[in-house]
Amino acid sequence: MFRQLMTLDEAKRIIDAQLGLKTLGAEEISLLQAYNRVLAEDVVATLDIPPFNRSTVDGYAVKAADTFGAEENQPVHLQICGSVSVGEAPKIIINAGEAAAIVTGAPLPEGADAVVMVEDTDIEGYVLSVYRAVTPNENVMKKGADIKKGETVLKAGQVLGASEIGALAALGLNKIKVFKIPLVAVLSTGAEVTEPGKALPDGKIYDINAYSLSTAVCESGGKPIYMGVVPDDTAALREALEHALTSADIVVTSGGVSVGPKDLTPQTIATLGKPGLLVCGIAVKPGKPTTIALVGEKPVFALPGHPASALLMFHLLVRPVIQRMAGRSMSEGKAVKALAATRMFSAKGRRTFVMVKLKPDDRKGLVAVPVESGASGAITTLAKAEGFVEIPENQQFIDAGEEVTVTLLKGAFMS
Amino acid sequence: MFRQLMTLDEAKRIIDAQLGLKTLGAEEISLLQAYNRVLAEDVVATLDIPPFNRSTVDGYAVKAADTFGAEENQPVHLQICGSVSVGEAPKIIINAGEAAAIVTGAPLPEGADAVVMVEDTDIEGYVLSVYRAVTPNENVMKKGADIKKGETVLKAGQVLGASEIGALAALGLNKIKVFKIPLVAVLSTGAEVTEPGKALPDGKIYDINAYSLSTAVCESGGKPIYMGVVPDDTAALREALEHALTSADIVVTSGGVSVGPKDLTPQTIATLGKPGLLVCGIAVKPGKPTTIALVGEKPVFALPGHPASALLMFHLLVRPVIQRMAGRSMSEGKAVKALAATRMFSAKGRRTFVMVKLKPDDRKGLVAVPVESGASGAITTLAKAEGFVEIPENQQFIDAGEEVTVTLLKGAFMS
Repeated sequence: MFRQLMTLDEAKRIIDAQLGLKTLGAEEISLLQAYNRVLAEDVVATLDIPPFNRSTVDGYAVKAADTFGAEENQPVHLQICGSVSVGEAPKIIINAGEAAAIVTGAPLPEGADAVVMVEDTDIEGYVLSVYRAVTPNENVMKKGADIKKGETVLKAGQVLGASEIGALAALGLNKIKVFKIPLVAVLSTGAEVTEPGKALPDGKIYDINAYSLSTAVCESGGKPIYMGVVPDDTAALREALEHALTSADIVVTSGGVSVGPKDLTPQTIATLGKPGLLVCGIAVKPGKPTTIALVGEKPVFALPGHPASALLMFHLLVRPVIQRMAGRSMSEGKAVKALAATRMFSAKGRRTFVMVKLKPDDRKGLVAVPVESGASGAITTLAKAEGFVEIPENQQFIDAGEEVTVTLLKGAFMS
Repeated sequence: MFRQLMTLDEAKRIIDAQLGLKTLGAEEISLLQAYNRVLAEDVVATLDIPPFNRSTVDGYAVKAADTFGAEENQPVHLQICGSVSVGEAPKIIINAGEAAAIVTGAPLPEGADAVVMVEDTDIEGYVLSVYRAVTPNENVMKKGADIKKGETVLKAGQVLGASEIGALAALGLNKIKVFKIPLVAVLSTGAEVTEPGKALPDGKIYDINAYSLSTAVCESGGKPIYMGVVPDDTAALREALEHALTSADIVVTSGGVSVGPKDLTPQTIATLGKPGLLVCGIAVKPGKPTTIALVGEKPVFALPGHPASALLMFHLLVRPVIQRMAGRSMSEGKAVKALAATRMFSAKGRRTFVMVKLKPDDRKGLVAVPVESGASGAITTLAKAEGFVEIPENQQFIDAGEEVTVTLLKGAFMS
């Protein structure tokens, strides 16, 4: 029954080639709800910004030519013909020899092409003395100087934060097309797990994975559909998976994928539809039994039951798929350099991931300390591991003191 | 009318001393909704994890002493008295000379203290041959080895991600107490601004700030209440502010705080209640007219109208207040080192913030390039600025080529 396992890179290539990772299409939402969503189309300005020539100072709108020659002790005199407020279309026209009071942000009246600052003037009745010449366009932000009508302001794929949403508001938009958020059904299998919140029967433990993986879905830019713990029999599992496939764009299970007699998940997934199983086990440690299928256009990931292994495999395989379906650029996750605290061994012929915590060290900077897995328990490993170190298939170990790259598992979302 | 302006540090000290930045108390929510929320109380384990002695391998539960002396060519023989499944309380007891089949994750039956791995055994009828001795507790995860009942698993103030939520699930919790999210009312003032989505009258521009600041509230861990644009008169502004104070925990306005005759905001805020105005202008550039008040226990921030200045002042003053009310540790924001691309001047006697974009440079690493503000327009500045460089009050300029710290404005939330 020995079968050569696929390498991690082969599994990733199959995902890329087979899963057809298109986005899920666009939906129009209120700009007020758009924080952290992904723009689904290029946004082109439908107006000039500013939409009019705008004064950038408090002062007097003039024809610049009228001020030529004005100096500290040789003012030019202009006739004040009115004033312009912010937020109103000017009702006056500036003719030669005239000026109008104007405030910052107000539109320049017709005929004016510059603004003299209030501190360079004196006023007596309707006569304005100008003590400093201005050039055409001085103290004026020209119509379209910020954004020109027809200009592409933001591109599809842009994640929307405060400044992007501010720019969209400036264009007058209060609705915007964003990519739909992938729905990810998350379910746990295993006779030994009980849903949190229920009484714990003898011999059982509480399920961790449906919760930790649902949260990892949020961190990846997807929306989880929590489906809890599925009873450990083929009919129940099949029904749950079929329900998951009708409700979600991606299905993630955990548990039930090693080689014990009760490990029904891969067999059941194989019966759900074409094209079916794509990956049955990967030469990695941990995470070897990871199984990936495609049912219609929907990917199904069956992850191992150990919580730290499940979260690691999610990070390596599921997260990039969610990100791509969400229209997000795939990030490898933030990484930091550190020195290995101890020798870290690889599993022969398997890409090995060592969960580590980071400790500052006065002399060495950061040090990566392996977190014991397996016997030391799921929660301890989960809670302590800040990231992982990767050892290639063809390398036996990383020596103590060697520099390693630690890919961070926490706060992966914003990376 | 000259008045000595407060320094930024004085303004921050007043915020710390006067605003009484307590959290808003706790609420109980579903653990499934807890992503990125802040734990409001220490969580103590109410059960041992695992709750029973658990086999970590597939094999046979035995009394270790019965296997002593077993070797490759000198097996010990034991009588098989039954089997134990995962998820079930064992119905059998192991007596001397007996063994029971057991799978990974199943509870050790009474009387057994170790598990022999299946690969170290042979079986013929009901007789098990053991070819390798085990020590007590070998291949067993002891009850409470992961978490002990009574142990503090997570502390109040912890932001909840995948591993924390997994740990809480492991304890059987499906509800959890988290700090309430601060509600932040955001409104814009100014005769020249119109709400996006409406027709744009001549002489007006679309409001940016209520949108960009609402998004910045989300990025800071608060929940915005968008109140749009308030007409430029005292009665309307007063009514809007009173409504904001009854609906929200914090009020943020923008516009209407410079020294023009229509700048009603500070005067109006002053009439809302005790203790009233705390900060009326700060010796910073940009952001000088920033006004801060306290009405009852609710802070009111009146920020300048220029979108980039408003967002900068929000980042410096409002964000830490939201974070503290949300129970989050205050982060200064992520920062990177870069070299100044050009000489950057400070405004005399004012803490100066220069908005910059970052450019990679082959020889110098990152270079910080100032983004022109003012005349070049609000959107351009907003969209291009990736962060800011701070110049102290007593420093005239930063020279081209000097190393500077750039505090990043984007993705500030997860920092």
